[in-house]
Amino acid sequence: MSLHRALTGRVVIATHNAGKLREMQELLAPFGIEAVSAGALGLPVPDETGHMFAENAAIKAHAAAKATGLPALSDDSGLCVDALDGAPGLFTADWAGPNKDFYAAMERVMRELEKREAPDRRAHFVSALVIAWPDGHEELFEGRVFGQVVWPPRGDKGFGYDPMFQPDGFAETFGEISSDEKHGIDWSKPQPSGLSHRARAFVKLAAGCLHRV
Amino acid sequence: MSLHRALTGRVVIATHNAGKLREMQELLAPFGIEAVSAGALGLPVPDETGHMFAENAAIKAHAAAKATGLPALSDDSGLCVDALDGAPGLFTADWAGPNKDFYAAMERVMRELEKREAPDRRAHFVSALVIAWPDGHEELFEGRVFGQVVWPPRGDKGFGYDPMFQPDGFAETFGEISSDEKHGIDWSKPQPSGLSHRARAFVKLAAGCLHRV
Repeated sequence: MSLHRALTGRVVIATHNAGKLREMQELLAPFGIEAVSAGALGLPVPDETGHMFAENAAIKAHAAAKATGLPALSDDSGLCVDALDGAPGLFTADWAGPNKDFYAAMERVMRELEKREAPDRRAHFVSALVIAWPDGHEELFEGRVFGQVVWPPRGDKGFGYDPMFQPDGFAETFGEISSDEKHGIDWSKPQPSGLSHRARAFVKLAAGCLHRV
Repeated sequence: MSLHRALTGRVVIATHNAGKLREMQELLAPFGIEAVSAGALGLPVPDETGHMFAENAAIKAHAAAKATGLPALSDDSGLCVDALDGAPGLFTADWAGPNKDFYAAMERVMRELEKREAPDRRAHFVSALVIAWPDGHEELFEGRVFGQVVWPPRGDKGFGYDPMFQPDGFAETFGEISSDEKHGIDWSKPQPSGLSHRARAFVKLAAGCLHRV
């Protein structure tokens, strides 16, 4: 069991994505954490040159912590398909192109699978959350949700690759499961848990670095 | 079952690696294929900008086929660690740096695993073989060998990450298993098979595109 550093006061969310910011603000509020965004502070977007989700999250968090003098929280996440050895992985967003055409990205996943004979459909979403402090200290928390990719995609409740991802134990895709059920965390339980990769990572982060106020 | 195009006569091996060339020449000889190397023909090394092993192999094979007017065979391969969501993956060689320090690369794998709490050690090697023809046709054959990463590394019979990879069903690492046992293929068996990822991919390639002479 590693020892974690407590996160208190203000934190920069190292994202320029309004949806991620709002989700993080809601998650952090019960812990008395005030979250401001890197975008609102006018910070530049660093190049994500890492070879792993955790590395890209760390690049973004350290850049924001250094620029602001505040602890910074960052997420990097994606879809990994086993038969494609983890692709699209780091290129999860890239496959949607500049127009964010995730239907085309999902089609590409299926096209790649069809090139293989009888490929298995196992896949997982992963979220790597990194908190970096201005002194260079960092904490990493990862969450994964395992399942399979399906075709055709189903549902309009998610975004990205959600409509083609069916988590283990569910008959619905992430496109058919409500946002509350995917991302919600019931903190009243003795062992809080979440369904989505980001919710699972956040439960670990809370256990390690946050204190309910 | 897809239909494959037969490979006959001369083929360019799209590699500048002498070891890979020799291995391919030995594997192709029983099928009456004469293999010449892209390096010997003075072809440039194309940028490997793909997002998957199969994509990088295709980039190299198509470049060599186009430059020579001959069918071209290329391999792209690497180590994927489950708890690292497939890393080092496409960066398998990069982690060894310009000095090809694979001990440092293996240490990096372990250091990354130690950042995670109780990570599993599952991993696989993958080889993607692509044959491209000058008219743009391509065939893809992939082989994988599953196992776990171990520490410390053991054995000096392999190269790269071999000493830290223990295949399922073996007590030895790829560094302790002889080259013959790893890469050999017994063609006299009704269902020839190989142990290594490249041997497994080559068995599929032979079944699809080669005819014993």
